[in-house]
Amino acid sequence: MDLAQTHITIDRDRSRERIGRDVEHLTGADYTRSDTAICRYAYTPEYRSTLDWFVAELRALDFETWEDPVGTLVAQNVPAGTPVLALGSHCDSNRNGGPWDGTLGVVLALEVCRLAAEHELALPLRLISFLEEEGSGFGQMLLGSRICAHRVEDADLEERFRAIDDDRPFSEHAEAAGYDPARWRDAAHVLDDIRGWVECHIEQGRVLQDAGEQIGVVEAIAGYVHADIEISGRADHAGATPMDLRVDALAVAAEVALELERLARAAGHGTVATIGEVEVRPGLINVVPGRVRVSLDVRGTHEPAFRGVAREIARFAEQAAERRGAVARYAERQSVPATPMDPAVVRALDEAAAAAGVPYRRMPSGAAHDTMCVADRAPTAMIFVPCRDGVSHAPDEEADPADAAVAAEILLNAVIRLSA
Amino acid sequence: MDLAQTHITIDRDRSRERIGRDVEHLTGADYTRSDTAICRYAYTPEYRSTLDWFVAELRALDFETWEDPVGTLVAQNVPAGTPVLALGSHCDSNRNGGPWDGTLGVVLALEVCRLAAEHELALPLRLISFLEEEGSGFGQMLLGSRICAHRVEDADLEERFRAIDDDRPFSEHAEAAGYDPARWRDAAHVLDDIRGWVECHIEQGRVLQDAGEQIGVVEAIAGYVHADIEISGRADHAGATPMDLRVDALAVAAEVALELERLARAAGHGTVATIGEVEVRPGLINVVPGRVRVSLDVRGTHEPAFRGVAREIARFAEQAAERRGAVARYAERQSVPATPMDPAVVRALDEAAAAAGVPYRRMPSGAAHDTMCVADRAPTAMIFVPCRDGVSHAPDEEADPADAAVAAEILLNAVIRLSA
Repeated sequence: MDLAQTHITIDRDRSRERIGRDVEHLTGADYTRSDTAICRYAYTPEYRSTLDWFVAELRALDFETWEDPVGTLVAQNVPAGTPVLALGSHCDSNRNGGPWDGTLGVVLALEVCRLAAEHELALPLRLISFLEEEGSGFGQMLLGSRICAHRVEDADLEERFRAIDDDRPFSEHAEAAGYDPARWRDAAHVLDDIRGWVECHIEQGRVLQDAGEQIGVVEAIAGYVHADIEISGRADHAGATPMDLRVDALAVAAEVALELERLARAAGHGTVATIGEVEVRPGLINVVPGRVRVSLDVRGTHEPAFRGVAREIARFAEQAAERRGAVARYAERQSVPATPMDPAVVRALDEAAAAAGVPYRRMPSGAAHDTMCVADRAPTAMIFVPCRDGVSHAPDEEADPADAAVAAEILLNAVIRLSA
Repeated sequence: MDLAQTHITIDRDRSRERIGRDVEHLTGADYTRSDTAICRYAYTPEYRSTLDWFVAELRALDFETWEDPVGTLVAQNVPAGTPVLALGSHCDSNRNGGPWDGTLGVVLALEVCRLAAEHELALPLRLISFLEEEGSGFGQMLLGSRICAHRVEDADLEERFRAIDDDRPFSEHAEAAGYDPARWRDAAHVLDDIRGWVECHIEQGRVLQDAGEQIGVVEAIAGYVHADIEISGRADHAGATPMDLRVDALAVAAEVALELERLARAAGHGTVATIGEVEVRPGLINVVPGRVRVSLDVRGTHEPAFRGVAREIARFAEQAAERRGAVARYAERQSVPATPMDPAVVRALDEAAAAAGVPYRRMPSGAAHDTMCVADRAPTAMIFVPCRDGVSHAPDEEADPADAAVAAEILLNAVIRLSA
């Protein structure tokens, strides 16, 4: 049988029911610390229960399971050292989260493991559920996959990264939970022997919904610049200071906001730019703002385009401030390069999506994902399923298990193509 | 002697020293609740000490002193029922205040009382120190003078106006301090028999400083509109939402901020407009703002001009929001008409300033003052002295006692002219 040419059509109703049931199950009281939202994060009983549930399901499928030295869960149906196709995501949530973000990707990986068994495909599979993608425990996003990718340092884990709940270091918490964080470098083995990795995730945007499409095949994960612009003008009495004598920091910020929007549109290539935080001081109705800080989030898959926007808005802010006698300072918080997906994995997903006969598109991921940290070590790609109104990181986050079942079929078939 | 034609030149050095000493004295530990700022407000021991100090100084000048049913201090050197010239301000401060705001006006009134005695002028004088101008006790600005002007209701004092410190009603606090707030309507007598009222105050702006002038003669106190514009867009993921699919509430707010500035300049007549508060929700670096609230402070002495700006920005916000698929709602908090000063009192101050031979100007007051509540009942005006860089309501608020001494000379001579 030429697997690359054959599309396996799954029983989508059955997968829809199983996926819906699994996601629903993991909203139960054992799996969330909140009565009104999904809230689970590293080293809590609720997170432990969630891993345990996956472990039980995977063992029932004859997968071996283990955890890396800090708690990333790995399951595999072939002996160590065998080249595998790897699937997964994360099953922690943000603190006021919903049922789908991350969890869907692990549930879908499990579903593909089930389907492979049911279809007796003997595929060499690995499931990975990365620790602490959302940063709810220690304020550090993608923490588990960054540890696997050696994108942290000893001092980060031992000192710098501290629990939001009690300010104690990551390592102390990991040890208390029974892990061996001093051996964190061994987490790299989570990514050994991977011939291909695919993460499925809700889109967290509204492109698919608005276009009426069921699947997005991700071609690249956007890089980003996170920065702040701090504008120093002069706080003056709002009544006693004529318009001509003002150095209004907020007026500069307003010009920056509109110019940022213009620059992002002009940059093209899907570049996006956002001011999400505005801090005004003194912040009183009757005082001209003396200082304003705005955050910048500039993203894109085209490096020169999005980095150009960040550079140009920094220059614009300086000049706009100067024109008003103010001063603007640009300070970068973090900058992450774009992560192109592997063309062969993207093609496998694309062909499987086409064969599944559903409306789909190739698209970028604007959000960051653990896949960014896998991409150094293995050919990677992602697929998206739509989520209602683009809502994520909120209790009313919603996706359709029917779309997820299609994603399971595409994942299964892509894995078959890649293992051929 | 034709008093209206004669200018009395005072010993400015002596007045400078006395004023500087008095203001300095009232920064002492007995008079402020803070180690790092001036902080005094109604019914605190520090406020009581401040009144007591003025009472002692005034009694030494043979003034009778009393307090109205809530605690506004009145002192007079002629029997009740005699027409008087009245001077004063307030001696409470904001909670992180400086030595000059308000206090200077009461100190200067005291200085004029001293000068009248030294020059044996037998002027019929009243000093008034209004309660709670800054609102530090109960969050209500101009409270004492509003009570005198009957601009409050029973329910305000008994129920609505509550202490910032313990949320108990104003009346309870007033009673505990030994007053009789049920008789608050009798406070109207504070404003009986006044032939003219002049309040001296620091400018709280930088017009005088920047122009190198020592005195401002206030022609009108600006009226104002305080309002909020609440913009509802849509909170979306900053990475996953293309520019064309956004309904960014902050972009609308930025357009509103720049249009407000344009409208205020275009309105002329010294109209000013300010956005001092900006509240962004959810306020996260990686989320497109779904809701933004901005405050509006629009002021001027020309009613149609400043009210027009408020009306036009409300309309502009609606349209700007609509263009982006958002919604803007304008909600007025409070609106206060402009208060023209009495032409005869202004002329008396103007002539006295000219005779004093110092650089001065006629100007509006952008800030609100107790004088607004006196104006219903008596011919009123104000004079300003410069303050360093326009700073007020802050510990580093600073004015020059030499300017204040000139103000004392002008006040004294204006009072002489008005009593003629």
